[in-house]
Amino acid sequence: MTTISIPAPADFHVHLRQDELSRLVTPHVRHGGFSLAYVMPNLKPPITTTEQALKYKAELESIDSSVEYLMTLYLSPELTPEEIRKAKEAGIVGVKSYPRGVTTNSDGGIESYETYYPIFEAMEEVGMVLNLHGEVPSDASANIHIINAEPSFLPHLKKLHERFPSLRIVLEHATTRAAIEAVKALGSTVACTITAHHLALTVDDWAGQSWNYCKPVAKFPDDREALREVIREGHPRFFLGSDSAPHVHDSKSTASPAHGCAAGIYTSPILLPLTAHLLESFGALDKLEGFVSTFGRNFYGANQFADDEKVLLRKVSRPVEESWSAESERVVPFWAGKELGWEIARDYIGNDNRI
Amino acid sequence: MTTISIPAPADFHVHLRQDELSRLVTPHVRHGGFSLAYVMPNLKPPITTTEQALKYKAELESIDSSVEYLMTLYLSPELTPEEIRKAKEAGIVGVKSYPRGVTTNSDGGIESYETYYPIFEAMEEVGMVLNLHGEVPSDASANIHIINAEPSFLPHLKKLHERFPSLRIVLEHATTRAAIEAVKALGSTVACTITAHHLALTVDDWAGQSWNYCKPVAKFPDDREALREVIREGHPRFFLGSDSAPHVHDSKSTASPAHGCAAGIYTSPILLPLTAHLLESFGALDKLEGFVSTFGRNFYGANQFADDEKVLLRKVSRPVEESWSAESERVVPFWAGKELGWEIARDYIGNDNRI
Repeated sequence: MTTISIPAPADFHVHLRQDELSRLVTPHVRHGGFSLAYVMPNLKPPITTTEQALKYKAELESIDSSVEYLMTLYLSPELTPEEIRKAKEAGIVGVKSYPRGVTTNSDGGIESYETYYPIFEAMEEVGMVLNLHGEVPSDASANIHIINAEPSFLPHLKKLHERFPSLRIVLEHATTRAAIEAVKALGSTVACTITAHHLALTVDDWAGQSWNYCKPVAKFPDDREALREVIREGHPRFFLGSDSAPHVHDSKSTASPAHGCAAGIYTSPILLPLTAHLLESFGALDKLEGFVSTFGRNFYGANQFADDEKVLLRKVSRPVEESWSAESERVVPFWAGKELGWEIARDYIGNDNRI
Repeated sequence: MTTISIPAPADFHVHLRQDELSRLVTPHVRHGGFSLAYVMPNLKPPITTTEQALKYKAELESIDSSVEYLMTLYLSPELTPEEIRKAKEAGIVGVKSYPRGVTTNSDGGIESYETYYPIFEAMEEVGMVLNLHGEVPSDASANIHIINAEPSFLPHLKKLHERFPSLRIVLEHATTRAAIEAVKALGSTVACTITAHHLALTVDDWAGQSWNYCKPVAKFPDDREALREVIREGHPRFFLGSDSAPHVHDSKSTASPAHGCAAGIYTSPILLPLTAHLLESFGALDKLEGFVSTFGRNFYGANQFADDEKVLLRKVSRPVEESWSAESERVVPFWAGKELGWEIARDYIGNDNRI
């Protein structure tokens, strides 16, 4: 039987939600093989203070204490350099910038990053990471749309890096060849996450198929190829951030003329087997450890873990579960019903999954 | 009260379906203000013979005899030059080429048009029209996808026109600036239909919103602007073909991981008011008569109609109906619930719609 052992898999971009949905999906981090979750702050209301982040972290730990949760704040005008220093003291790792947040508090342009320069200076000083959702808002008058929103953002990434060369920046969930090339061309403080599903999908897959619809949308085959190439290359500044984004079943399955479906693809419960399956499909299985563990942990300086914190994968063929339910919530994983070529034989806390 | 009178509106691309669904949607041609319907042959099974086309025409006339139905055949290997001559004799007007039909009977490439050259020669000789669904099939290995499928088809259009300069060809439902420019650059025997919904939508509108999903998919704001420009210009080789494509409610509203939603947007029941509304929105209301009647009728030589065959539109603000039902079928029109700025005050057979 073919097996692979991966030390301490780390997902550097995941949505763990709130309340009932959080109780359903948070245990799926471990189920999917991951012992570290870099947690997004876009709750309702968003996590904008150290206190909120610590409270949220405690809630997640009460659901599943086997995972290490790295917490983030939501970039907003309420944030101050003082709060950044306080957050750093409290162990909070990063600040996430969403384009809508930027837009809401500007004259409609991403140029308003300049208003956040005092924040970024404080982050650079204390060593916090800036996580960028790298898309500019659609603007028909400027021919900006969901397909070119990411390439149109890249000049802002370059400008931020030039202004704050020591600030660690992560371009999140890259989907285009342009983004891969831009990050490669920048310095060692700029990294990039790639999701599992963007290694599988193109625009053809989400047209009329809401289960494959997420933001940023999957782009063209050549863009997908660029994501695969940089992983095959084993580039140390490109690593997994799943952007696993659960939504309740009905919000994904059903559209009315007034309301479309929710954006987001849910990969947490199958993440390590899915990633192994995908990397194997394009000849990069030997880069799995770097992509899901070493590279991200090195960039974040998060490389303390026990020697026995390992996940054992074994080669099989088994279908992805159709859904997961708890209380009144139901979520459907990516590729529900499709065959995966790998499964978890033993998780990082030593639980065996016997055949 | 502001009114516009339009002589004999003609929809040069419409899907009237079969059986129950046909009985529901065929009367919507007149309801939407149109007295001519150029009828697509993609039934199950497709309309490939003169007999089938005449039988289908009789069925449509039995549902609503006030509309003139121009019939088409589905391009397939069964078609012969003899059948083309027979079809012409029987009053059939055109032959529709679908990319899938081409692909099924070739080694996967649109190059197989050459196998149809004897058909096209016969069509050129007798004066039938070739209607092209101008997209090449997606092919990830060649980076062909639903966004560049139409531009990638244009070399085939040019080649066909060069080889058959007297053959009247219509590029159907153009969605890109590239297509508009290509058709403008070709000779007087090549025309182009434009749908109403592609004057409204861009890629952002169908992402996660199945009710706005059709093939070809709506493209970028600059492409939409090119469609609007050529109408504002009053170019006589660009005219309305709605591609109105009804699907039953559930096939549009609900996706499972295994099955996405049906492609198609239903505009027939609101077509003339919708088109007036859209043309007014981009400053082309003075081109309405050309776009919905004169240009297409001239290209097809279908300009015989009675002096009193006129539709009177009046300016109002009224919402689009939420749905239409009959027997066990229900269809939802484009822009359900949204306000339109025009309605039909009197239809072409003299029925008043009193306020």
